[in-house]
Amino acid sequence: RARVRSLVDSSRFQWFIIAVIVVNAAVLGVETSPGILDDARWVVTLGWVTVGIFVVEIGLRIFAHGRDFFRDGWSLFDLFVVVIALVPASGTLGVLRVLRVLRVLRLLSAVRSMRRVVAALGATIPGMASIGALLLMLVYICGVMSTHMFGGTDPEHFGDLPTSLLSLFQVMTGDDWANVIRPVTDEHPAAWVFFILYILISTYIVLNLFIAVAVEALDR
Amino acid sequence: RARVRSLVDSSRFQWFIIAVIVVNAAVLGVETSPGILDDARWVVTLGWVTVGIFVVEIGLRIFAHGRDFFRDGWSLFDLFVVVIALVPASGTLGVLRVLRVLRVLRLLSAVRSMRRVVAALGATIPGMASIGALLLMLVYICGVMSTHMFGGTDPEHFGDLPTSLLSLFQVMTGDDWANVIRPVTDEHPAAWVFFILYILISTYIVLNLFIAVAVEALDR
Amino acid sequence: RARVRSLVDSSRFQWFIIAVIVVNAAVLGVETSPGILDDARWVVTLGWVTVGIFVVEIGLRIFAHGRDFFRDGWSLFDLFVVVIALVPASGTLGVLRVLRVLRVLRLLSAVRSMRRVVAALGATIPGMASIGALLLMLVYICGVMSTHMFGGTDPEHFGDLPTSLLSLFQVMTGDDWANVIRPVTDEHPAAWVFFILYILISTYIVLNLFIAVAVEALDR
Amino acid sequence: RARVRSLVDSSRFQWFIIAVIVVNAAVLGVETSPGILDDARWVVTLGWVTVGIFVVEIGLRIFAHGRDFFRDGWSLFDLFVVVIALVPASGTLGVLRVLRVLRVLRLLSAVRSMRRVVAALGATIPGMASIGALLLMLVYICGVMSTHMFGGTDPEHFGDLPTSLLSLFQVMTGDDWANVIRPVTDEHPAAWVFFILYILISTYIVLNLFIAVAVEALDR
Ligand code: NA
Ligand code: NA
Repeated sequence: RARVRSLVDSSRFQWFIIAVIVVNAAVLGVETSPGILDDARWVVTLGWVTVGIFVVEIGLRIFAHGRDFFRDGWSLFDLFVVVIALVPASGTLGVLRVLRVLRVLRLLSAVRSMRRVVAALGATIPGMASIGALLLMLVYICGVMSTHMFGGTDPEHFGDLPTSLLSLFQVMTGDDWANVIRPVTDEHPAAWVFFILYILISTYIVLNLFIAVAVEALDR
Repeated sequence: RARVRSLVDSSRFQWFIIAVIVVNAAVLGVETSPGILDDARWVVTLGWVTVGIFVVEIGLRIFAHGRDFFRDGWSLFDLFVVVIALVPASGTLGVLRVLRVLRVLRLLSAVRSMRRVVAALGATIPGMASIGALLLMLVYICGVMSTHMFGGTDPEHFGDLPTSLLSLFQVMTGDDWANVIRPVTDEHPAAWVFFILYILISTYIVLNLFIAVAVEALDR
Repeated sequence: RARVRSLVDSSRFQWFIIAVIVVNAAVLGVETSPGILDDARWVVTLGWVTVGIFVVEIGLRIFAHGRDFFRDGWSLFDLFVVVIALVPASGTLGVLRVLRVLRVLRLLSAVRSMRRVVAALGATIPGMASIGALLLMLVYICGVMSTHMFGGTDPEHFGDLPTSLLSLFQVMTGDDWANVIRPVTDEHPAAWVFFILYILISTYIVLNLFIAVAVEALDR
Repeated sequence: RARVRSLVDSSRFQWFIIAVIVVNAAVLGVETSPGILDDARWVVTLGWVTVGIFVVEIGLRIFAHGRDFFRDGWSLFDLFVVVIALVPASGTLGVLRVLRVLRVLRLLSAVRSMRRVVAALGATIPGMASIGALLLMLVYICGVMSTHMFGGTDPEHFGDLPTSLLSLFQVMTGDDWANVIRPVTDEHPAAWVFFILYILISTYIVLNLFIAVAVEALDR
């Protein structure tokens, strides 16, 4: 068992697994075009070989680390995405076929520098909570307001609350905002004030969100 | 009175009020679709219950804190948005119905970390004043210039001063700017120089505005 | 003469001039809509009164400061924009009418905090020179290349060098870039590589340009 | 030989070469419009003169520095772009005509501050590797997913993997994203969740990429 553990934890073995993950990712990409698959059945075979390697690898790691395996979040994630690959995908389970691509995420757990980046990115999220909540509140309030005020004038963009929220999200990202609000402002010119205030305030909050992330990154 | 005050200031009571604000926000959201209201009258009832709770809460806080209540900006704000809810909204007062959604802003006063974020965001605004004024001046000057120069060529975007200012604001945000200026540049190719200078200078000032906010945030 | 100087340099006098500049700016804004002018001749009169005040003010300042007036860049700028107002604008000199709006820029020289902001913004420009030159070089090289390669396929966007440069500037700002390059990529799918590399590299250089400005601002 | 070296390394000689590079760049720009060339044959002649100067300069530098010339990356780059100019461009070698514009890049090696900027920009790239790989992984996973899920609904944007990747890159840059995803969301409203999550996560990673560059620049 100690020998299996030293094998599983060796950097040579880990680099091999990383290579298999990359090959598997390529296979998943090729599988998006069914036409190619008919000509190249070996790609499907290659996919099953990589899945087989994953199963063996997970088995060895469970054998090597025992209970510790099930206490490590990344290991459980690896187990999860490998199990998904084994469930037959058909009918209403077609969603599993889509989830299989999550196997590519195994790169996150396999490459150490990736783990660190993900941890660092995750660590900055709490610092964004208050400002993010403020932004959500702004969008929600403006969404309710604009549904009341502009729902009749432009039902396509402000007909009901979800539509308004999406339109306001679009305006916040600056995508085509002048065209989104045109039908409303053509009828109520005063709506310009509402939208320009919304753009200025939401941009200001987003800027502070970005700065909060930057400040936390600088403190690291 | 001391007992009421200790109740009102207890964190359990404050968390209860936060929950009521969230429920009230959800009700305000549901009320945007009149169709649903006919099927679910209880939502309207729930809305009135939350308003009732707000009235009682404000009453208790006034009783508990006396004159101090009216010296605190956040308390007055709470009073204001609750009073709005009680004014019957009809006819030309339909705007009150829209203002009712401001009640969601009570979250700002109720959650302490939110208050701090709002205070921090507000504190950085003065540092933006000079650069913001410079930006306003640039947009105003270019607005007057472009109305004189391009008002005849493209009245849709530069027909009068307000229209020009809005078009220049749109160009500044980078939204569809190439299409906005096309009718002008097709006729006067030299206008490209005007608009590219405008884009470069306004982007540079906006960048410095953002940096001013970041610098102040880093100093905190 | 010393009395005139103490008057001219008094903060009360300077605030008065700032007020006159703001009134003058408003008049320049109103003058953009000729229709209003016919109904309100007094606006034109007000405009001439403000110009008269400027002439008197400049005269007093020249009298007070003598030769020193002509050694100060801001003073010469003030003299220049006032002189422009006095030149009769007609015929081919219609451009002077447009230049008159530069009088609003007197706010820059009149308000002290504005002067400081402009000086600070100007001081960061040299630090951008090398990176800005690199960006220019990239756009120029890609402009020449895309004119050679795509000029025949899509003359509207890449027909000659100036057109290509403008299209690439538009792509760099991210405005509608996917539609700009579509006619080219529909014919030469490999052009995607060219444009994506261009977007990545130009964005990277612009980012470094922005960071250079931020670093200089942080050093202040 | 020592005299040649002192000539070649003198700053006067280097400024002369910089001037020749700029002239050559202008000639390359003019050569994009064949019409002008017929009227002004001297431009072509000027182009050949500049190339002649480059050949002589490279020859002198090889003579002066001997083997050291071939050990310096920038020198080899200079040699490469000059050699390209001498290969006759015709037929399938038309691509060489396009590559000739790379001669403008000689400015990078000729101007010292440019070399430093390029070195600084290059030095920050490794720091972006992990976050960049994370971004690539996200786009790849979402690309495979959206091809499976939306390929049938909207083949124009998600028909095969390369198309999906390009559409997702476009969405990530914020260009016209609402219109790109409309055909999909009209059919599957739940796709909004997928795309908004994609926008939020990809923007967050790009932000961290930018911050990583800024942090490294601040450390310099
Ligand atoms: Na955009
Ligand atoms: Na756009």
